[in-house]
Amino acid sequence: MLSKNKIKFINSIKKRKYRDIHQCFFAEGEKLVDELLNSNVQTTDIYATADWINSNQQKIKIQPEIEVCEISEAELNKISSLSTPNKVFAIAKQQKYKYELKEIHQELNLFLENIKDPGNLGTILRIADWFGIKNLFCTNESVDMYNPKVVQATMGAIFRTKVHYVESKEFISELNKLENFNIYGTFLEGNNIYSETLSENGLIIMGSESHGISKELSSIINQKLFIPNYPLDSESSESLNISVATAIVCSEFRRRIKQDYSK
Amino acid sequence: MLSKNKIKFINSIKKRKYRDIHQCFFAEGEKLVDELLNSNVQTTDIYATADWINSNQQKIKIQPEIEVCEISEAELNKISSLSTPNKVFAIAKQQKYKYELKEIHQELNLFLENIKDPGNLGTILRIADWFGIKNLFCTNESVDMYNPKVVQATMGAIFRTKVHYVESKEFISELNKLENFNIYGTFLEGNNIYSETLSENGLIIMGSESHGISKELSSIINQKLFIPNYPLDSESSESLNISVATAIVCSEFRRRIKQDYSK
Repeated sequence: MLSKNKIKFINSIKKRKYRDIHQCFFAEGEKLVDELLNSNVQTTDIYATADWINSNQQKIKIQPEIEVCEISEAELNKISSLSTPNKVFAIAKQQKYKYELKEIHQELNLFLENIKDPGNLGTILRIADWFGIKNLFCTNESVDMYNPKVVQATMGAIFRTKVHYVESKEFISELNKLENFNIYGTFLEGNNIYSETLSENGLIIMGSESHGISKELSSIINQKLFIPNYPLDSESSESLNISVATAIVCSEFRRRIKQDYSK
Repeated sequence: MLSKNKIKFINSIKKRKYRDIHQCFFAEGEKLVDELLNSNVQTTDIYATADWINSNQQKIKIQPEIEVCEISEAELNKISSLSTPNKVFAIAKQQKYKYELKEIHQELNLFLENIKDPGNLGTILRIADWFGIKNLFCTNESVDMYNPKVVQATMGAIFRTKVHYVESKEFISELNKLENFNIYGTFLEGNNIYSETLSENGLIIMGSESHGISKELSSIINQKLFIPNYPLDSESSESLNISVATAIVCSEFRRRIKQDYSK
């Protein structure tokens, strides 16, 4: 049974302010909660129908610290943020990750400047996860990674990718410490990404939906890339959506690395 | 001034049923209406603030058949479907395109099976436009291309791309008439897209968000493609979002065609 106080608490954490105060967030639906329980992220509460609890006894047993509460479909409707609520609602602890410059130096990383749309951030987390990008940086002005729409759009990728919120200036001065480290960004006047030399490590900066990459961040980019439209002289759209551009850029970086497909 | 009847009419065409009865749709905001007026799509009505009308006298003059109605910001708020209404609201005629098999045979085309999310269809139209894909097919069960969220997400690409709604079986029997025509689709068990031979013409089939490509359509695909995750053996997301996958596939097809970047 759901008490009034619990309903009140759950509805409060739909707002960032209360998620931050309580350092928590929520994930909904069978698929997402399944990914949550299989991850290193700590689940604290599960509100689920009898049906779900019966089918997931094993998973719950392994994590006895989780408070499990059986609720009715009607109760689920009261707390869900989905248009079609799906059996289970979980609350988990926010993760605070630290990054090591050494790791950043060795890997391919993403940096999103002032991304505002939760659907875009969620989709980009899913892209990062697909292409093995472990660290994703966002400026502090970006949308909250624990916004329910972000969590939902990641389809679970949020539990596997480290998201770091940083202050632009501070992060730039950290990056300046790295030698032989390539920083990439997409620009309409950039060079054809298909024929540029791309390194296995580095940082890809993607600008905001409405303003692109700021001057401050442009100044640290040493390789400007362009995703060619086709044909080049056609009157097509002025640009691609940020998550679409991120997908094409990440795919192109990974395409260059030969993998063994025979396995 | 907006009459009550006009407000009623405009609010009715937010629903597909009434858009179909009146064979019209609407586009909002400065950028989108600008693209509309520069396209071959026929605008019938414009509701705009005095400010917008003053700045766009030239464009309106060229198309004297458009009924222009000056409205206040408050009136715009009453008809807009945007969270922040932006100066102008236009009504235009739905386009019915015919396709010629000969053209389809020569070009690269997209076919979306039962796509449901308006944001995805809009984003894919923008991708098609960027990569010079002129004809996009959707099964009749797909979301309406004139859904306001689709129109908005295309950022104007909808005015340049021919969208055809087709009945799967009929379209398949049309495609069967074509010789030497490659039909592609993405599958988890497909071949690495980066190393496959891809033709300049053909049809790329993308499955629905929740069910992938149906058996019926799978049977006409003669080249199954896979977008490799990285690293191959990692536990990453199970799949990519449909618009992200479409973007990567289209980019890979166009990458193979050498273009002259020196101009």
